Amino acid sequence: MKPIGLAVVGAGYWGPNLVRNAMATPALDLRWLCDLDEDRARRVLGRYSTVGATDSYDTVLGDPSVDAVAVATPAASHFPLAMAALDAGKHVLVEKPLTSALADAHKLVQAAEDRGLVLMCDHTYCYTSAVQELHRLVHGGELGHVHFVDSVRINLGLVQPDVDVLWDLAPHDLSILDYVLPEDVSVVAVAAHGADPIGHGRACVGYLSLRLSTGAMAHVHVNWLSPIKIRTMVIGGSQRTVVWDDMNPSQRLAIYDRGVELGPPQQMDAEDRKQTLISYRTGDMVAPALREQEALRVMMGEFAAAIRDGRSPATDGRAGLRVMTQLEATARSLAAGGAFVSVEDIA
Amino acid sequence: MKPIGLAVVGAGYWGPNLVRNAMATPALDLRWLCDLDEDRARRVLGRYSTVGATDSYDTVLGDPSVDAVAVATPAASHFPLAMAALDAGKHVLVEKPLTSALADAHKLVQAAEDRGLVLMCDHTYCYTSAVQELHRLVHGGELGHVHFVDSVRINLGLVQPDVDVLWDLAPHDLSILDYVLPEDVSVVAVAAHGADPIGHGRACVGYLSLRLSTGAMAHVHVNWLSPIKIRTMVIGGSQRTVVWDDMNPSQRLAIYDRGVELGPPQQMDAEDRKQTLISYRTGDMVAPALREQEALRVMMGEFAAAIRDGRSPATDGRAGLRVMTQLEATARSLAAGGAFVSVEDIA
Amino acid sequence: MKPIGLAVVGAGYWGPNLVRNAMATPALDLRWLCDLDEDRARRVLGRYSTVGATDSYDTVLGDPSVDAVAVATPAASHFPLAMAALDAGKHVLVEKPLTSALADAHKLVQAAEDRGLVLMCDHTYCYTSAVQELHRLVHGGELGHVHFVDSVRINLGLVQPDVDVLWDLAPHDLSILDYVLPEDVSVVAVAAHGADPIGHGRACVGYLSLRLSTGAMAHVHVNWLSPIKIRTMVIGGSQRTVVWDDMNPSQRLAIYDRGVELGPPQQMDAEDRKQTLISYRTGDMVAPALREQEALRVMMGEFAAAIRDGRSPATDGRAGLRVMTQLEATARSLAAGGAFVSVEDIA
Amino acid sequence: MKPIGLAVVGAGYWGPNLVRNAMATPALDLRWLCDLDEDRARRVLGRYSTVGATDSYDTVLGDPSVDAVAVATPAASHFPLAMAALDAGKHVLVEKPLTSALADAHKLVQAAEDRGLVLMCDHTYCYTSAVQELHRLVHGGELGHVHFVDSVRINLGLVQPDVDVLWDLAPHDLSILDYVLPEDVSVVAVAAHGADPIGHGRACVGYLSLRLSTGAMAHVHVNWLSPIKIRTMVIGGSQRTVVWDDMNPSQRLAIYDRGVELGPPQQMDAEDRKQTLISYRTGDMVAPALREQEALRVMMGEFAAAIRDGRSPATDGRAGLRVMTQLEATARSLAAGGAFVSVEDIA
Repeated sequence: MKPIGLAVVGAGYWGPNLVRNAMATPALDLRWLCDLDEDRARRVLGRYSTVGATDSYDTVLGDPSVDAVAVATPAASHFPLAMAALDAGKHVLVEKPLTSALADAHKLVQAAEDRGLVLMCDHTYCYTSAVQELHRLVHGGELGHVHFVDSVRINLGLVQPDVDVLWDLAPHDLSILDYVLPEDVSVVAVAAHGADPIGHGRACVGYLSLRLSTGAMAHVHVNWLSPIKIRTMVIGGSQRTVVWDDMNPSQRLAIYDRGVELGPPQQMDAEDRKQTLISYRTGDMVAPALREQEALRVMMGEFAAAIRDGRSPATDGRAGLRVMTQLEATARSLAAGGAFVSVEDIA
Repeated sequence: MKPIGLAVVGAGYWGPNLVRNAMATPALDLRWLCDLDEDRARRVLGRYSTVGATDSYDTVLGDPSVDAVAVATPAASHFPLAMAALDAGKHVLVEKPLTSALADAHKLVQAAEDRGLVLMCDHTYCYTSAVQELHRLVHGGELGHVHFVDSVRINLGLVQPDVDVLWDLAPHDLSILDYVLPEDVSVVAVAAHGADPIGHGRACVGYLSLRLSTGAMAHVHVNWLSPIKIRTMVIGGSQRTVVWDDMNPSQRLAIYDRGVELGPPQQMDAEDRKQTLISYRTGDMVAPALREQEALRVMMGEFAAAIRDGRSPATDGRAGLRVMTQLEATARSLAAGGAFVSVEDIA
Repeated sequence: MKPIGLAVVGAGYWGPNLVRNAMATPALDLRWLCDLDEDRARRVLGRYSTVGATDSYDTVLGDPSVDAVAVATPAASHFPLAMAALDAGKHVLVEKPLTSALADAHKLVQAAEDRGLVLMCDHTYCYTSAVQELHRLVHGGELGHVHFVDSVRINLGLVQPDVDVLWDLAPHDLSILDYVLPEDVSVVAVAAHGADPIGHGRACVGYLSLRLSTGAMAHVHVNWLSPIKIRTMVIGGSQRTVVWDDMNPSQRLAIYDRGVELGPPQQMDAEDRKQTLISYRTGDMVAPALREQEALRVMMGEFAAAIRDGRSPATDGRAGLRVMTQLEATARSLAAGGAFVSVEDIA
Repeated sequence: MKPIGLAVVGAGYWGPNLVRNAMATPALDLRWLCDLDEDRARRVLGRYSTVGATDSYDTVLGDPSVDAVAVATPAASHFPLAMAALDAGKHVLVEKPLTSALADAHKLVQAAEDRGLVLMCDHTYCYTSAVQELHRLVHGGELGHVHFVDSVRINLGLVQPDVDVLWDLAPHDLSILDYVLPEDVSVVAVAAHGADPIGHGRACVGYLSLRLSTGAMAHVHVNWLSPIKIRTMVIGGSQRTVVWDDMNPSQRLAIYDRGVELGPPQQMDAEDRKQTLISYRTGDMVAPALREQEALRVMMGEFAAAIRDGRSPATDGRAGLRVMTQLEATARSLAAGGAFVSVEDIA
């Protein structure tokens, strides 16, 4: 089977990672690396490569051997670049966020669906072994009902000059949540608090409370102001609780075989049941063996497979749209002093 | 010097710990363990003890050898028992919370000050080596300005039938925060979110955002619904950041010698300063050696020393009052759907 | 049932722990704390105790209410004190090492058996939750055949002036090994290496290789020269491998569900089998929930139960004798430059 | 400056890593990947490469653009391939072990020195950030005198059919030790114990005791029979002790600022000094920030720099020779039942 011709657009921070993983994916044939600065593209490709470098997006879109485009440019250019690619009949992979404006994201999703083309959002974290196992634990029923989700992402990255920390980092947590939660559980409202203790002009510390359709709550803490990275997510279920510590590679996931349960219902009426002391089960912890895999490689494989099979990828345009809608609710809640903003009102 | 005569009231969950630590404190002379159930008091004292057991609080208060009373009974009885002791001229140590109603707490503090007696609140955590080192790091200036505080207390304890998780657990975090923050930094407003995914009738998962007078934010996550304990607090400062992990005894505190800072101000105007990329310092981590000590032992020593020296203890009635005021604001915010409630409006 | 009357002899480093745990054991009735320095004994008992203090061992042995004696004195006095107690018809618990000379240990064991009295050696570690679980894992067959045991005990303790590190610390590891190994597996030979890089005059770093009767090897590293404590034991089995990290209370035991196995025997002859690549099973890790318990409390209960039931305790005199024999072989190997010394030649 | 022309020989397990890192090293110009199986070489290079693949070593050696050869073939072919390269005037990098026979290693070292060519042994671990920091700590004097070294390498790798675990794994530890120890400290004797509990025919568990010229001891535990990897090295010094845990990336090195020291010498005579209790200093732990770097990249840079500067690389042929000599002593000790074998007798 002929591999899928691919062009990567953008040779900045993320583009080189796409190039490297595309080259390692047998189902893909990397044709171009395109950047406004052709020399930069050439430097990224290196001294030993046969892949073409260009600064002409038209050349890329006009090349019939190119079946798909992967966009890794600044957010403001996502929409025009992706739309042009769709218009040229190419499948599209876009870095998060899908677009910089919510209305554009809707247009992009619609355009891809109208044309029958794959539109994928590069929610890289969803393709880590850990998140795929989280997905399996929740969807397979091992955790039971989801009681709470708590995510912490304290980052060592650059403080971004033009956005706040919620817009910069929370998309990771929201996309993971979107991927992991069961289909029948949705985010219904968002409340956001932020602080800017260093006089940056925008929140550098952010807290996000997400009301789920089940009455449970998810919570996200994002933070730029720390010399250490902390990346943990706890998903508490009625049967088990799982702790993901991404900074602990020898034991990223720990599944605790103990939940909280109400006492035996037959022995008490409804009122009793709530007021009675709740008994705890306690038990062992299991740390499952996870495959060591590069998430981006798996994501690339999923992109190729979705194109080949004519199906939606795991993190499709609609997933990107849901995340953007929640980000919009976040911005509105932050502006409104922390009140809950309904997601439905936005979408 | 004659030791201070002490009576412990309450032989339930916490009383035995007070008894054991009082007996190990040279400056104290334990005279009585008082409980409504005298047999229970006797069982707590054990087969080899010369300490008296009684079910008569009048006997305790009428005993001239008793200089001080330590109250470890259910919260509802704190106020009458403590007030009676103050009226009898005894110094008083009270378990948290100081009282069950805020107005009573005010009365108790006033009564102690009027009589020149020590009123102490048993904020045990403040007397751990870790929190004392946190206090030292903040007050000594090593951390710089406090940029954020993030506390997580996921507990394995009993789900309480008549209170919510914020009332049950957040007093620990609030009392630590009260102890650790510099004198000129105060909590000005509180917003609380809660969830009750198990149908308990009250919040089993709680999130608390605290606006500090400096514009920084403190945040508390308390949670009953987990099979594992997580107890961490991160204090991010302009100079250093410290992470306290109370479940890791060989490295409870880790101090990271890296902060975030704005670029050199002389080289840029106000506008530049905010828009410029913010430079990161990076550096080493230091895990200070902490003395292994039982917090309750240290607390007992502080109680005795405050009585002896006629001074306020580190966690005095006013500290207890501040914590209770914040808890009241928490309850009001929770009832109001998560809006910020000003602490000043309450106090 | 009348509790067993007990006297503790020795109010130095370890005696107070025996006193405290004896008092907390319902089946025991602590009558005396005996020490050459009666004041020291009194200080250990404290201001609130009804237990008698004495400097007269004759008084203790002559007291008909005393059924048993626990000896926590310097090693040189173990033999005369324990033998006198046996002669007086008392059951005896002795701190490790059983005696300072191997011949005396034989006499003591013989004397206890002749008189039908309990002789127990306080191998405290064997009564921790972790070691009891190790015992269960090995004896219950979950680990499969024991392939190797590796124990590391890097201590922060005092460098002892009159003994070497092997004599000081290895008894812990040897007693654990003696307790954990199956009955049909024994230590057949010992080789010891030591180093004295600080000019102490005796080995401060020691390595012990133990040949087991199955051809497997156990190994012990003991060390005084470190600012940190490391206490780990790995038991590798044909089915599972367990890692015990005593400095990690939230996860002391980790059981890895992966062993090494030869390829399918039916597909190859004996020669092939050895030369073929050996396939690895890989799988999950389980960290079992362990009860939090004070080992000394459990040991005290076992001592009382053995007396009551007229049976051998788990760590009886013969266990103490086996450990001492291995220590003697260790000393001889060290003197001989590290050659293997057969245990049979000594016993 | 013209880059150094390089050919990699061997496209098996390790070769691809050499290829990838050579391509990322600006000072090198990768000309060939040579393998007996040219298709395998081509597959390793991938679909986008301009590097040549060949099965002809003569072609490689005859190419005047090739200045240096990196040999990553089975051990038995190291000597003929490396010697031919030296004869052709090429610099040589060889995988460990330098050769399969000690005599050949001597010849190789001599040949390189006679011709003034660089001969480097790929002791990769020496180029990790952690080992370079260990080197700095020891050579810079921060640790003080080295009192003990303890290395554990429990591996999950394939059990090798034709060698024992000491030959397979101990070279890593020996090369690290060779690199880290001060120039005036050498290994003088080696004793080895091994066990084969699975009937492999050769030792699968190995212990190595190394007598250093200072009287201190280094010790190595290598092990194939475990489902988990453990890779730790403790270097105990008179001033500080450092613990390297290679499986803990967020804290690979921990430096403990506490040593052991004899009491104040002025207060006691020589005899006292040794018999007195030795006082301990205790203090903080520092975990230095380490650069994240691929060791092989650094090693490649060192190879190129050594060629350019006409100097010996950090892990030169003589380092490889010392490691091989210690391995020979290991084999002899193992055959002799564990007696110490002098390194001098071999070299």
